[in-house]
Amino acid sequence: MLPVLVVHGGAGFIPKKRVQPACAGVRAAVRGGYSKLQGQGSAMDAVVEAVTLLENDHHYNAGLGSVLNVKGEVEMDAIVMDGRYLASGAVSAVRKVANPVQLARLVMDKTSHLCLTGEGANQFARAMGVPEVPEESLITEYARMRWKKNLAADANPVECQMGKMGTVGAVAVDAEGNIACATSTGGMLNKMEGRVGDTACIGCGCYADNRVGAVSPTGEGEAIMKVTLARLILFHMEQGRSAEAAADEALAYMKERVGGLGGVVVVDPQGEWSVRFSSLQMAWAAAQQQTLHYGLYTGEHFTQNIDDPY
Amino acid sequence: MLPVLVVHGGAGFIPKKRVQPACAGVRAAVRGGYSKLQGQGSAMDAVVEAVTLLENDHHYNAGLGSVLNVKGEVEMDAIVMDGRYLASGAVSAVRKVANPVQLARLVMDKTSHLCLTGEGANQFARAMGVPEVPEESLITEYARMRWKKNLAADANPVECQMGKMGTVGAVAVDAEGNIACATSTGGMLNKMEGRVGDTACIGCGCYADNRVGAVSPTGEGEAIMKVTLARLILFHMEQGRSAEAAADEALAYMKERVGGLGGVVVVDPQGEWSVRFSSLQMAWAAAQQQTLHYGLYTGEHFTQNIDDPY
Repeated sequence: MLPVLVVHGGAGFIPKKRVQPACAGVRAAVRGGYSKLQGQGSAMDAVVEAVTLLENDHHYNAGLGSVLNVKGEVEMDAIVMDGRYLASGAVSAVRKVANPVQLARLVMDKTSHLCLTGEGANQFARAMGVPEVPEESLITEYARMRWKKNLAADANPVECQMGKMGTVGAVAVDAEGNIACATSTGGMLNKMEGRVGDTACIGCGCYADNRVGAVSPTGEGEAIMKVTLARLILFHMEQGRSAEAAADEALAYMKERVGGLGGVVVVDPQGEWSVRFSSLQMAWAAAQQQTLHYGLYTGEHFTQNIDDPY
Repeated sequence: MLPVLVVHGGAGFIPKKRVQPACAGVRAAVRGGYSKLQGQGSAMDAVVEAVTLLENDHHYNAGLGSVLNVKGEVEMDAIVMDGRYLASGAVSAVRKVANPVQLARLVMDKTSHLCLTGEGANQFARAMGVPEVPEESLITEYARMRWKKNLAADANPVECQMGKMGTVGAVAVDAEGNIACATSTGGMLNKMEGRVGDTACIGCGCYADNRVGAVSPTGEGEAIMKVTLARLILFHMEQGRSAEAAADEALAYMKERVGGLGGVVVVDPQGEWSVRFSSLQMAWAAAQQQTLHYGLYTGEHFTQNIDDPY
């Protein structure tokens, strides 16, 4: 059943004209990441590759296409976790980098810390030779339109946020049985400057443990944080639940206890995987044994040979 | 058994001449917080009061007396959590505020977010009328001496960090059975600019749930994050373990799995409490039923009437 890679493009409601590119993007991302797994790549290489492709795709709220904060600026959070050693790296409120997920991996690989924030993260990026990109190069017309719309006095950014595309993420198990996850986001629409959401927070926006599995969540960030969603699902799996049952239990708990909606991709060490969400839609794709799986609505599950075109 | 308040002044090794003030400070903090619980104060009021007193005491690595980052600057993390609604507020890498724990509480009470970082946190502080203090006013001669010592090429800040005072924190249950926790820190000695540790991260540096209990950890921040220590202990308690057994199990796991040392204060909804640490020392104090409990070394447990002077 190994290797396996599962990616998501965010939980929420996707406007009709963005459905096709949202679905195409996650399929392309899972193909890109899976090709790493078929070569010499590790689970970590695969999740970083998949999330990088989604950050570069302007249809997702991560990297290019990130939502804007209340000032109209881009501040991004990203995280990676390596299930072998529980190693992790994250950046929060980082600006002017094209691929925050790659910077998060550098935090893990090149520092003794787990998270760098704001200007400190940018200083580290410069020290590592990561190019600084103009803020404008990360902003799409669509993001600017939504930002302006949400500045209106009667706007409800939280509601609007759930109604659009979200965070991106990936989980993988490689042929050696090593497990990794990665998550990246532009955060919450019209958020306050400096707001850090679940994505930068280990146990909330990402968790991977070779002994148990990995989770990458998406959805209402503050709700995900309150229940430490990623770690919660893995605790349920440690108690013997399947990835699917653990995800369902935790998502139901999040809805009941703090009123939050979201979605997750989950893998276990044997390569069993699950995609579950309490939101209306979540674009997702998975690759395992030369088969590409994908879907958008609850219960939707299409398959094709991974080498077949669209 | 209610109300109860337990505070800590950091896990590690305390130099001999700092032992007396370190022990005096936690006793004063627990008295201050407990007086809130005896009046109309909630568990949240009590933990914020206790941590504020410790931030104001220059013998602890939080607020005044914080360790310095590699550039010789003060960047602080703090968090609070309210076990009734799983509400939480945090600030990370915040500068020039005397009491980060109070700012964290404002994030919880006055925003829809859970965490604000860096300059965004300071903007929020200004908007809330929190006075900006000169950075110099937070820096002690002792902190500057340690910073300089650790700039030496052969210095080992991680080792040195564990050998000194750490993070401060508190957990409480009030007469109504509401549970809260708070943690505050200057972080890790000679850390990189923008480093965020466990304290700002929900589930790692703090967790409170009226149904289960609360935990405030201290110690090696990156290790605490890797195992999401606060949430891990509460998961063990959800499985039926006592506060003490849960803390011991999680601290042993942290040591075995990621090689990290630390300590915790823990309460459960019935007011049972526990203080456990794998470090050599941890200054702690607790107040319950008019009795003041305190200690420093493993197994040390002194008691006195709370109204008795020293």
